Parts: sequence; structure tokens; C-alpha cells
Amino acid sequence: MDAQEFRRLGYQLVDWIADYRENLERLPVMSQARPGEIRAAFPDHPPLHGGRMAQALAALERDVLPGITHWNHPSFFAYFPSNTSYASILGDLAASGLGAQGMSWQTSPAATEVEEVVMDWLRQMVGLSPAFTGVIHDTASTATFTALLCAREKVSGYAQNTEGLQSGEAPLVVYASDQGHSSIEKAALLAGFGRSFLRLIPTDENHALRLDRLQAAIDKDVEIGLRPCALVAAVGTTGTTALDPVAAMADLAEKHGMWLHVDAALAGTAMVLPECRWMWEGVERADSLVFNPHKWMGVGFDLSAYYVRDPQHLIRVMSTNPSYLRTAQDGQVSNFRDWHIQLGRRFRALKLWFYLVDVGVAGLQARLRRDLENAQWLKAQVDAAPDWERLAPVPLQTVCLRHVKPGLDEAALAAHNLELARRVNEGGKAYLTPSVLKGTQMLRVSIGAETTERRHVEALWEALRLAVR
Amino acid sequence: MDAQEFRRLGYQLVDWIADYRENLERLPVMSQARPGEIRAAFPDHPPLHGGRMAQALAALERDVLPGITHWNHPSFFAYFPSNTSYASILGDLAASGLGAQGMSWQTSPAATEVEEVVMDWLRQMVGLSPAFTGVIHDTASTATFTALLCAREKVSGYAQNTEGLQSGEAPLVVYASDQGHSSIEKAALLAGFGRSFLRLIPTDENHALRLDRLQAAIDKDVEIGLRPCALVAAVGTTGTTALDPVAAMADLAEKHGMWLHVDAALAGTAMVLPECRWMWEGVERADSLVFNPHKWMGVGFDLSAYYVRDPQHLIRVMSTNPSYLRTAQDGQVSNFRDWHIQLGRRFRALKLWFYLVDVGVAGLQARLRRDLENAQWLKAQVDAAPDWERLAPVPLQTVCLRHVKPGLDEAALAAHNLELARRVNEGGKAYLTPSVLKGTQMLRVSIGAETTERRHVEALWEALRLAVR
Ligand SMILES: Cc1ncc(COP(=O)(O)O)c(C=O)c1O
Ligand SMILES: Cc1ncc(COP(=O)(O)O)c(C=O)c1O
Repeated sequence: MDAQEFRRLGYQLVDWIADYRENLERLPVMSQARPGEIRAAFPDHPPLHGGRMAQALAALERDVLPGITHWNHPSFFAYFPSNTSYASILGDLAASGLGAQGMSWQTSPAATEVEEVVMDWLRQMVGLSPAFTGVIHDTASTATFTALLCAREKVSGYAQNTEGLQSGEAPLVVYASDQGHSSIEKAALLAGFGRSFLRLIPTDENHALRLDRLQAAIDKDVEIGLRPCALVAAVGTTGTTALDPVAAMADLAEKHGMWLHVDAALAGTAMVLPECRWMWEGVERADSLVFNPHKWMGVGFDLSAYYVRDPQHLIRVMSTNPSYLRTAQDGQVSNFRDWHIQLGRRFRALKLWFYLVDVGVAGLQARLRRDLENAQWLKAQVDAAPDWERLAPVPLQTVCLRHVKPGLDEAALAAHNLELARRVNEGGKAYLTPSVLKGTQMLRVSIGAETTERRHVEALWEALRLAVR
Repeated sequence: MDAQEFRRLGYQLVDWIADYRENLERLPVMSQARPGEIRAAFPDHPPLHGGRMAQALAALERDVLPGITHWNHPSFFAYFPSNTSYASILGDLAASGLGAQGMSWQTSPAATEVEEVVMDWLRQMVGLSPAFTGVIHDTASTATFTALLCAREKVSGYAQNTEGLQSGEAPLVVYASDQGHSSIEKAALLAGFGRSFLRLIPTDENHALRLDRLQAAIDKDVEIGLRPCALVAAVGTTGTTALDPVAAMADLAEKHGMWLHVDAALAGTAMVLPECRWMWEGVERADSLVFNPHKWMGVGFDLSAYYVRDPQHLIRVMSTNPSYLRTAQDGQVSNFRDWHIQLGRRFRALKLWFYLVDVGVAGLQARLRRDLENAQWLKAQVDAAPDWERLAPVPLQTVCLRHVKPGLDEAALAAHNLELARRVNEGGKAYLTPSVLKGTQMLRVSIGAETTERRHVEALWEALRLAVR
């Protein structure tokens, strides 16, 4: 493909995306494809001769689109919002076009320095003090994994440099709530702690970690000779956006010399609203924290914001220094390859920059307030409807509910609500996530696609009630 | 930003990228920016009000571009090729535009199934048997880390499910050559093996792993009660593209019950040429292997191809199964979130698909042969020039050389060659990597940008000789 063809196909694809977005509302939210259906439209072998981009663009529309579940659809209420704003699409396009690798400062100084600028903007936006320094990770999963590695090395005095976790020393223990995201468990397993040394602490009626149970677990571990190592506080759990008591957890972390990591993957974005910041009171005492601008904010996946208090510790844990990566500027500049797992890195800061200058802080705040109000509206409907039950507080944009039918036992209620979810999702007009909360089958409505207006939430509520009949 | 503005700015950005690419040759390859210079052009605070995309696009050209080191420049000879073809830029744009999350099959069936298709195409292209199944990872670093986790769990009988590496059992050992990439060491440390249990085996005069030394290291470890766990074979080391003896290493891995992982990050692409496949003879016996289409091939960063023989083992090691991620199709389909560290995943297969249909297998083969011939040409020049020395064989596209000046000792020669690199790189006409090979300072020329013709390699050779004067 030459530049001329790139221009032509590029315009065409830009138009295709704009058309797609403008017509989104007419498409079924969840893909109606059956397993194997999309694959069957493709040849079994790669083409020997190229020059088939026009056909590929046609196949994108004809064969691929029916296999897309539309995360940017205004009636997408499943999982979490994964907003990819127009501005961030453009930022990502600029990054692809430049094709620069930002692994070291020298390999594209702008990739490092623009990241420093926008990660500091973001820090200010969520009200964190300058004691925190940010770096872009791909996902919260890798950021939380990195945090556990930092914890492991802090508590063990950099044992990775010698014997890793194979030293035969007292085992290290990780604590989180039983409502913590699965990425915490995954991180603890990958980092070699092992499931026997991961404590998932029971939660209270609001689904927040119980301090008394945490304290008891720590005491017991210390008693049997284990070493408390890391404590992960969830600010906005995946199930119900529950809020762990960060400040009190910070006290315990301090007392026992543990690393405190805050997982605010979804909820961190809410902190752009000053009225939400009480939710993570104590966050300034965390050693590390992650939140995902690629969720509710508006920056296309993947862009996770990882903040740490001590970048030098992070670098000591994550760096290797082979001769082929050394440059004349080392020591004066940040080489972000040493701030995460990967070596190569994309110029992701561009999409965050474009997004922020397009939306502005005030614009983002207005949208977030709209989403919070929509959630409160739905909460009020559920609370007022006789046969519906709300299963958790609604501090943010997620509403957990179920339909109750007199005479049905728990198993039958679960089946009934799963069936409601199936009907709504397969109906194509909305998409939500059925999930289980401490044994109770619920319907989880996560509000906050960029284009979701009140009328879409109203339509969802209508669809849910229709599904019952 | 509305659709109308997106169209307008999208066209503008497509043109900007095309103009950038067409004018690349006129720009200095390595950014001439000084530390802090790019950052200084940005405001200290995020904008309160948005709508500033036009200004951002202007700033992209004015403030960001001077801070870019141009990886797609035809005179980029540093590190490794990181080709981002026009077609893959378009594929990535389509992925951003759709904004789909492919963590589970249901969350966008096409994201999973197109990936299955193109990863199988790629498998065929590099001549691997259908015994291998592929999945897209972001980087070779995470893929190699994943491989070591798979090794850890295989050899320990899934101990992660219980005590991780904290069981007090016989420590597990990882082996690789002393020319292996730093990501192997990083992976071993992150996975908790610890540096004491990582053996970097000496290499022969061609910089390939010495089997006798490997055997001796294993024997010694077994003797003192350690357990050989993983063996990483480099096909194309970073320093010199040296080739470890994969088949013989497979024998040893089998004999000692070790996991065999092949790191062919750069060189895997060469296997699209049947005449290169002798280089990884024995690869069919590997348990896992990684190579990077985001390097020499032409698919923009990030897209790393990870192949395994036993996907069920991979899934068992990497999966968590919280209720909010369960779907009706589980069991019938692949949920790729369980094939790597991250939960969320971009629709990266699109850029690989677009690239392959644009270039075709034959087109790619022609380009790779061109690059190999260019490397042979440079090798011949170095070999014929009296004051220049070649430091390693040239099986692929990397030529390692230095200038020798009679009367200089090794330290002075090193300083002299570093100075040559500085002159060439700061001159802006070409960019190469100074690196150290077993104590010898060398100049590493890695050929293979999409637009690199013979004349660019000739110009580099000229620039090197001019720098001497
Ligand atoms: C609380 C929480 N933490 C972590 C994650 C994982 O996010 P990622 O895909 O960025 O790893 C999620 C995503 O659902 C989440 O809700
Ligand atoms: C042999 C080898 N392995 C691994 C890597 C790491 O690549 P990535 O940036 O994809 O992690 C490189 C990159 O230079 C390499 O040359």
C-alpha cells in the first residue's frame, strides 16, 4: 500500500467508523453470532498475493461487524463502561501512524515526556497530591501484579535479587476482600505467593472489607509465623462498587509493615468529581494505586493509570539493564520500560492527551454527574417497584437488582433472574451482566457509556419489566 | 466531538500521517531533543474547558514531532525493526473505532474468532505444525513470563493453587544462554524464581548456547537437590541473532522434564522463508514459543504471537473464574482472557489481518529476502575493509561490527567506537545501537525497516566510514 492508497482507505475507514457510531443505536448491543459463525466466513489459509484491502474493508462490515458486541452502544450496561471517545480514537491513530517505541527516553523522548505531562494532569484531576508519580500500564491486572511484586520485594528486602520466593523464609501473605477483583487473585498466583497465602477477607452488609476480620486474619498469620506482605483495598468493587475503608486499612498496613495497594479500576474516574473523594479517604497513604481511564473515563482501551509513591523502588524491582538498552541519557531521564513488565511500549499518552483537551475537566465532570444521576434514578425505580429488590448500595454508577416472585425459592429465583438477563441480552435492545453476589443471583446494571442518556436507562428498566411477563 | 468533527479531523490526521511517512527521509532518525524540552512545551495543568483538538493537532506537529525517534525511517538501524505498515495502521484504527473488548468470546465473538483465524494463518506461514495453537500477547516479555509460569506449574504439579513458590520444596531452576534477552531474566525474577535459580549458560564463538555447559549446569543443580524447570532457547539473540541449538536443547529438556520455551522474538518472522527454517530445527518439540509480528514483519506494536502445544495447561495456569465473567458459551469457545495476564483485551487481530491481506505471503517473503541480501552486502563490505572487523556471523539481518585502529587498546577502541555511534546518531542521517558483546564494544546494525533499500545501507556504510575521519 502506498501513501495514496492509505489516504483513500483512511478516509473511507474514518467515515465507516463515524457511520458505525452514528448508527450504533440500531444494532443489537450483544452480538447475536453463534460459536464458529464468524470464523467460517474466513479462508483457512493466508493469501499468497496481497493487495486485497478493499475486500478486507468489505468483509469488516459484512463478516466482522455481526460478531461485535457494541461496548460503545448507549444501551450497553454490562461489565463496565469501556468508553472509546472520538478524540481518543484519533490519539491512538496518531500513535499508530508515528509507530514509535517508547521503551527508553531516547527511543522517542516525546513518548516519555508527554506521558509525564498527562499523567500529572490526571493526578491533579483525581485530587492526588504530588507525592504520587504516574506511569501508563496496559491494564489494572498488570498494575496490580506489579504492585504485588513491589510488595514482595519491599517486605523481603529485595529477595528476588537472590532467591525469589524460594528462600525457605517465612511465607509472605496477601490480603484483599472477598469482593476484590479476580485480577488480585491472579496477580498473587502469578507472583508466586500461592493460594494458601492469599486471604480473601469477608465483607460487611455493604460488601466492604470487614476490618475486624482483617485484623483477626493478620493476627492469626503472624501467630503461626507468616509475614503479612500486601493489602489490596478495593475502591469500587466489580460486583457492586463497594468501598473498602482505605484509611483504616492504611493504619493496619502501617502497623504490620505491609504494602497498601488501592484498586480503583472503575471508580478512580469518579474522583474527578470533588464530591466523590470521600470514597477513597486515606488514599494518600497508599503505596500504589491503579485506575483505568479506559473504563468509565473515555480513553480507548488500553490505558491504565498506575501511581506510586516511590518510583525508585518500582524501578529497582522491574528493571534489567542489558548493554543494548543503555543510552547516554540514563540517570537524567525516565526509561519507562523499567516501570512495568513489558519492554516495548506504544505511545499511549497521545490518546489520553487528545481526550483531555477535547473534553476538558468541566466537560468530563458534567458527564460523570449525568451518569451518577441516571444510576440514582434507576435505584429509585427499583426501590419503588414492589417485585424488585436492590441488592447493594449505589454510591456510583452500578445498580444491582433482581426480580422477586412470591413462592419461588432461592434456586428458582436465580434461574428466573438468569432467564430475565437472557431475554434482555438476546433481545438486543440492552446488555447487562448477570452475576452472583454472595450466593444471590443478581442483574448488574453498569451505567456510563458516553452516549447513555436518561432515556436509555428508562428503556432498560422498561425492557426488564417486560421480560418478566 | 461529534461525528462531523471526527470525520474532518480524521481525514486531516490520515493526511498528516501520510505526509509524515512520505517525508520521513528528510527528518533526523534519532530525535535531537534535549531532556525536558518536549515537556516544557506543555501546560502544567489540564484544560478546564475542552474543544481544543485543533490546537492539539498543531501541537502534535510543532511540539511532539521533534521528540520522535523515527522507527519507520528507512535509515533506522537501531535495536530491531518495528515496522508499522499502512495496512496495520488501518487495522488498528478499525479496532479503536469499534472499541470492543475481547476478554471473553461473548464480549465480541469476532475478536476471538478472527484471532483464531489469523493466528492459524501465521502458524502456517512460519511452518509450524497444527500441534501449535496461537494467541496474541502484547509483547514477547509477557509471553516469556507466561511460559515460565506454565513451566513452574507443570513441574510443581500446579503448586500455585496451593503454596506458590513458598512451599519450601526443592527450588526450581531456569536456564537460558548468557546472550538471551533481558526479558528472560525479568520473567524469572517476576515469577519468583530468584536470581540464584537462574542459570545464564556460556555461549560458543558464534554466541549460541553451549550444550556441554548446559548439561554440566543441570547435573550440578540436580546433584545439590534443585529441580530443573524451564529452558529458554533463543532463536536469534538480541545482540547478534545467534541461534541456539533447539533440537539438542529439546533432548535435554525431555530428559530432565523441563519446559522448553523458544524466544524467536525477532527471528520468527524469518521463518516465513522456507530457506530459513533450519535455524529453528527442533522447534516442533518446544512447549511454547513466541515471536513478534510487531518487529520485522510489519504489524504495528503491540502484537506478539505466542504458540503453545497444550492450551488447556495454559488456561489452567492463567484462568480465574469469578461469577461476573461467566457466560453461557463457556466450554464451547475460547475466552482469551485466560490465555494471558491481562483481563481486558483489544481487538489486535484486525491489524494482523489487514496487514496479511495487504502484503500477501509472497510480498512479505520478497521483502524479507531483500533485507537478508542487504545484510549480506554490508557483511561483505565490512569483511573487505581493512580497518573494520565483523564480530559475529550474519545469519539474518543484523550485522555487528567495529572499527579498529592500530595502536589502541581495548578501552580506547571501545571509546572510539562509542564516539562513532554518537557521531552517526547525532548526525541524524542514520541511527544504530552501540552495544557490548562479551566485553567488546560493538556497533550493531539491524536492517529491516519496510522502506530500507540498498541505498540506505550504502549510505550508512558511508556515514560510518566518514565518522572515522
Ligand atoms: C475493580 C476492578 N479491578 C480490576 C479490573 C481489571 O481491569 P483490567 O482489564 O484493566 O485488568 C476490573 C475490571 O473489570 C475491575 O472492575
Ligand atoms: C530476542 C528478543 N526477545 C525478546 C524481546 C522483547 O520484546 P518485547 O518488547 O516484545 O517484550 C526482544 C526485543 O528486543 C528480543 O530481541
